Amino acid sequence: MKIIIDAMGGDNAPLAPLEGAALAVRELDVQVTAVGDKEKMAVAIRQGEIPMEGIELVHASEVIGMEEEATDILKKKPDSSLAVACKLLAEGKGDALVSAGSTGALLVGGTLIVGRIKGIKRPAIGTVLPSLEKPWLLIDCGANAESRAEMLVQFAFMGAAYQEKVMGVQNPSVALANNGTEETKGTALQLEAFPMLQKSGLNFIGNIEGRDIPMAVADVVVCDGFTGNIILKLTEGVAKLFSAMIKQMFYKNTKTKLAGAVMKDDLDEFKKSFDYKEYGGAPLLGIKSPVIKAHGSSDALAIKNAVRQAKRCVENDVSKAIESYLAAQKEKEKK
Amino acid sequence: MKIIIDAMGGDNAPLAPLEGAALAVRELDVQVTAVGDKEKMAVAIRQGEIPMEGIELVHASEVIGMEEEATDILKKKPDSSLAVACKLLAEGKGDALVSAGSTGALLVGGTLIVGRIKGIKRPAIGTVLPSLEKPWLLIDCGANAESRAEMLVQFAFMGAAYQEKVMGVQNPSVALANNGTEETKGTALQLEAFPMLQKSGLNFIGNIEGRDIPMAVADVVVCDGFTGNIILKLTEGVAKLFSAMIKQMFYKNTKTKLAGAVMKDDLDEFKKSFDYKEYGGAPLLGIKSPVIKAHGSSDALAIKNAVRQAKRCVENDVSKAIESYLAAQKEKEKK
Repeated sequence: MKIIIDAMGGDNAPLAPLEGAALAVRELDVQVTAVGDKEKMAVAIRQGEIPMEGIELVHASEVIGMEEEATDILKKKPDSSLAVACKLLAEGKGDALVSAGSTGALLVGGTLIVGRIKGIKRPAIGTVLPSLEKPWLLIDCGANAESRAEMLVQFAFMGAAYQEKVMGVQNPSVALANNGTEETKGTALQLEAFPMLQKSGLNFIGNIEGRDIPMAVADVVVCDGFTGNIILKLTEGVAKLFSAMIKQMFYKNTKTKLAGAVMKDDLDEFKKSFDYKEYGGAPLLGIKSPVIKAHGSSDALAIKNAVRQAKRCVENDVSKAIESYLAAQKEKEKK
Repeated sequence: MKIIIDAMGGDNAPLAPLEGAALAVRELDVQVTAVGDKEKMAVAIRQGEIPMEGIELVHASEVIGMEEEATDILKKKPDSSLAVACKLLAEGKGDALVSAGSTGALLVGGTLIVGRIKGIKRPAIGTVLPSLEKPWLLIDCGANAESRAEMLVQFAFMGAAYQEKVMGVQNPSVALANNGTEETKGTALQLEAFPMLQKSGLNFIGNIEGRDIPMAVADVVVCDGFTGNIILKLTEGVAKLFSAMIKQMFYKNTKTKLAGAVMKDDLDEFKKSFDYKEYGGAPLLGIKSPVIKAHGSSDALAIKNAVRQAKRCVENDVSKAIESYLAAQKEKEKK
């Protein structure tokens, strides 16, 4: 299996993507194609003393910055690392793509260079989040700030397919993020999407309120990209606030410091459970081949875990699963 | 000062509202008018052995349930405790109103029986939330699931007036909840509201992302009621998840249990800081007289704290402050 990595994407590029590639080759039994500026990559490889077995380098002279227009990937910067990586994926020269670069550009490149799965209106970003007993998936996390009701239904299909195929959840439950559990809640968007989700054939369990979302009451939580982005980042923010508050608590006096020392390993593990680095990246669902968006500040570990996720997507053929879900629904609609 | 309490509102009515009323009379130097079914109130007073000094009872034969239509307060249930309480407030027979009943009915009653502040299009629910260094205010928390841009600007004015007058924050900073910090982020709503907030004369600091919201980067975070409801309840949900995770952590073995015993007081205080009971209620801003929505599951302590908040609103004349903010803006617009 060959995973394509955008070596110039993210805050720590090209060092972190290349180190992550080397970790992935060693631990995950994959080959990697790293796309980027050959000279800059060469410097990083020397600096990091990165073993290059299993890693092929492909040159791309440009980079798409985070501040640039997402659509620049098409005409203005066709030789950017991300554009070249997308083309390689489209041509079948790799099985999946990992990038820590601009989400917008990845979305445009995925949609227009790699291409959507037939029948999918808009790809969406899913993110797997931790909870007490099991992880859950949030979709869309920001690809489509404005979404229509029929898009939400497709997001639900894609999220369910991912939970089933990649995470191994049987008959995943789906809920609609809303400002109350009653059917009558929400804006025009939720009011329209609710009956459509009921008729979708998915295991739709109704509306879910903010307070139940982190408790993994549903395996898949579906929402528009604006709301999903708020949910994702707010969870991160509250986690950060809590960690700071707990730290303050343990630093109060000698007794609490001793207690803190006893709890150190557990606290570290707790923090880790909300650390995106451990979770890899967010799958961009609805694209013909697996595309994983790694966090912009990804280090080598995060890149490696994103590659692991990409590998699982390939092994379990998520794109095919999404197609089957859609086909099954079309059949139902005909009846 | 006289505070009107809807004695039949909330899960623990009429006992909790009446006990809360008695606590408020004793500790806060206010008088209370409790509105509800006289027989049911009498039973609760006997059961709870509630001292009745400073509490006047007003009979109302009906109750508006949480599942009823909010507009029932107007025609179907004019003799409900909440409708009667609103009428008393409208007639000046009290200075402020506290209810733990239906938010929707309180909103309709506040808007149509008590009346809006001149120039305010739609009242909104503000909520003060804790952070590391200072509390911050979220508005709207759910009164207006669908909001227009000019409503967001008014929410911002009302939130700033509350922070300044009741919480004592000088020149409160205001931010717009969004899916990114750049001006170009958001749905049509945020894109339209951003320049309006820039021109508002408020201390507008731009867009705020989910991860910065809990860190009190802004004194006032403004958003539509759908998003606000998600933010408020998700914060509660993540807090709940974290408490459960920390509990699990301390119950692991003898050593961690000992550490937990050392930390018990601090952990309790930590939990308390995210406990709505300590924070009182949420002000319904934009109504002529102060109206405080207490949490549906309020106990006596929560009701007392909601009364404290109502008292502060009266003392600092929040409604007047909102009017002045609006007038100042009108002046600016003329120029």
